[in-house]
Amino acid sequence: MPHRDDQSATMRSAMYYGAHDIRIESVDKPQLEAGKCLVKVAWCGICGTDLHEYEAGPILCPGKQPHPLTGSSLPVCLGHEFSGVIEEVGLGVEKWQKGDRVLIESVISCGECYACKIGCGNACSKLGFVGISGLGGGLSEYFLSPQEYLHRVPDNVSLREAAMSEPLAVAVHAVRRSGFKKGQTALVLGAGPIGCFLTKVLVAQGASMIICSEPSSTRRAKAQLAGAQHLLSPLETDVVARVKELTGADGGVDVAFEAAGNERALETGIKALKTRGTLLNVAVWSKDPKIPANELVFGEKAILGSSCYRDDHPTVVEALGSGLIQLNDFVTAEITLDDLVEKGFKELIHNNEQHVKILVSPSNKAWTPF
Amino acid sequence: MPHRDDQSATMRSAMYYGAHDIRIESVDKPQLEAGKCLVKVAWCGICGTDLHEYEAGPILCPGKQPHPLTGSSLPVCLGHEFSGVIEEVGLGVEKWQKGDRVLIESVISCGECYACKIGCGNACSKLGFVGISGLGGGLSEYFLSPQEYLHRVPDNVSLREAAMSEPLAVAVHAVRRSGFKKGQTALVLGAGPIGCFLTKVLVAQGASMIICSEPSSTRRAKAQLAGAQHLLSPLETDVVARVKELTGADGGVDVAFEAAGNERALETGIKALKTRGTLLNVAVWSKDPKIPANELVFGEKAILGSSCYRDDHPTVVEALGSGLIQLNDFVTAEITLDDLVEKGFKELIHNNEQHVKILVSPSNKAWTPF
Ligand SMILES: [Zn+2]
Ligand SMILES: [Zn+2]
Ligand SMILES: [Zn+2]
Ligand SMILES: [Zn+2]
Repeated sequence: MPHRDDQSATMRSAMYYGAHDIRIESVDKPQLEAGKCLVKVAWCGICGTDLHEYEAGPILCPGKQPHPLTGSSLPVCLGHEFSGVIEEVGLGVEKWQKGDRVLIESVISCGECYACKIGCGNACSKLGFVGISGLGGGLSEYFLSPQEYLHRVPDNVSLREAAMSEPLAVAVHAVRRSGFKKGQTALVLGAGPIGCFLTKVLVAQGASMIICSEPSSTRRAKAQLAGAQHLLSPLETDVVARVKELTGADGGVDVAFEAAGNERALETGIKALKTRGTLLNVAVWSKDPKIPANELVFGEKAILGSSCYRDDHPTVVEALGSGLIQLNDFVTAEITLDDLVEKGFKELIHNNEQHVKILVSPSNKAWTPF
Repeated sequence: MPHRDDQSATMRSAMYYGAHDIRIESVDKPQLEAGKCLVKVAWCGICGTDLHEYEAGPILCPGKQPHPLTGSSLPVCLGHEFSGVIEEVGLGVEKWQKGDRVLIESVISCGECYACKIGCGNACSKLGFVGISGLGGGLSEYFLSPQEYLHRVPDNVSLREAAMSEPLAVAVHAVRRSGFKKGQTALVLGAGPIGCFLTKVLVAQGASMIICSEPSSTRRAKAQLAGAQHLLSPLETDVVARVKELTGADGGVDVAFEAAGNERALETGIKALKTRGTLLNVAVWSKDPKIPANELVFGEKAILGSSCYRDDHPTVVEALGSGLIQLNDFVTAEITLDDLVEKGFKELIHNNEQHVKILVSPSNKAWTPF
């Protein structure tokens, strides 16, 4: 395998300098290293996490201290939901070849802490992410990937769809962690991207009923597209009463998914559970919420937290490859890197409800779906 | 078995009329019925639930509406933690004989709702209790018990100890529901009666470390008696930091038990858990608490509710009979029915921390331990 030394080359990357300060810059193209592959990025999604960094960061991006695992401080390259094609393969890499279509698993963990040792690197005490904590990212023409971050994109899956594997992995992990079983009933609170992807996974899992509670009618339409059968507005409907009506003798759903990060939604979710039901919290909170604790006690209910993903990508790849889960409907815009701030971040801030996923082409040109 | 018709007989009972209104009255002694046993009560404990009814009730006691399962309205006989000796046996009762020493399981459930159907009668939608919801109670000379509410007291267990089987069942159920395993570590928040009994059960389960957080030094001494190795005052110590120190590389305990019903304790418990740890909430809440929700998410932690008990009495009877759990140290006073309000309820209100369990002899005379 020839090792091409391309020191002088540069590439275009979206560099995060702090709140409201993302710059599309020319940076050095990374040099190939042993055990790594140089990936030409095809598509990269913009995530709610990216938006929070843009509006109020640095939050997860390193602040004054460099990130303990990457050693990086600002600026960092953004983009953690992406797919691409391998262009160069480093020494010692056996599994991958030039031309392979890949998607990237973005969680970075230390491998040494208690969480890592119990196979829960997604709760690593030093947790980091490609495209947030340093190491480069997907909002860039190229990404130099450790070989173990890569997963193969099945031939019949587009690189567009593959770019959404990261949020899909979040949803798969949450459903898996909730213990949700075929034939059970679910309430999904919030129909943003994660709420929609959760709904897709629940359909694939054979849910007997999926109820979605979401104040925005535009978003409710997306949840319907994802497969939710009952669409409720918490502004117009007593959601708890309606869930109890819909679930009849069970008196509530098996599992409620909190994907809104909203105190009222959390309360609704807990109250709408049947005896021994589970509320799975996948949302991140900007303020500590109150909970109706006696509901937990007298109904012997559970609240579980779920974070990112761990060992979920094989399931994701299989679900996309088999066609069990299809995500193409959720691409609501495709833009170039030059338009990232105006047509990406600002568009999501002003018209968030219109969108599920905006995909960015870092090479500033249209790609074919395959 | 002769059926004695004793219509004219009366007995002394503690009747609850409402807040601050408990009267020791002569009431009709219940007439024997088929399928039931007349139990002469030996000892009955006073519970925090009784205190709440006395101070701020009716809460669980029926209010304006009669209880849906018992049909009773006020006044009701109090006392749900008790033991006694069978004096008469009704028609069709095969298992019990006059002279049998028994303890009573107090939860009343409908048998028909979703919770009952999944074997979770402790979360019955119509949940009631002997000694709270009608049907009589243990703060009375006699209790006419449906035969299925009775459990046999092992020969080597005193009727005093047997009277504490009810709160012990609450603790056994909570530990069972938490999934706590031999060798794991625990934090118990609050060292009232339930906190102490939980500690006893955790010792019996083979906990490798039990840490207790409790502001009262008197209560911390009880927790120590129960077997807690580390006694922390949340007023003097940063409990989360100390737990992390004590648990070393694990970074927290496996299970925290919230037996305080206090927002600060709940927060401490959640933060003191290791990754994927469980907070088991057994306390009842007078106000909805806030939770540090992001701790749940990033640590993939769980909060579980536990209520009363269900199918736990066989374990309780076995633990008492084998001597694995001994509760005699926790009787802090023995009083007669005539002294119930002054030396029972008022004493617990004014000197709560001095006590774990006050036992009442409804027949107003000293019993031998056996
Ligand atoms: Zn993301
Ligand atoms: Zn780690
Ligand atoms: Zn009690
Ligand atoms: Zn029931």
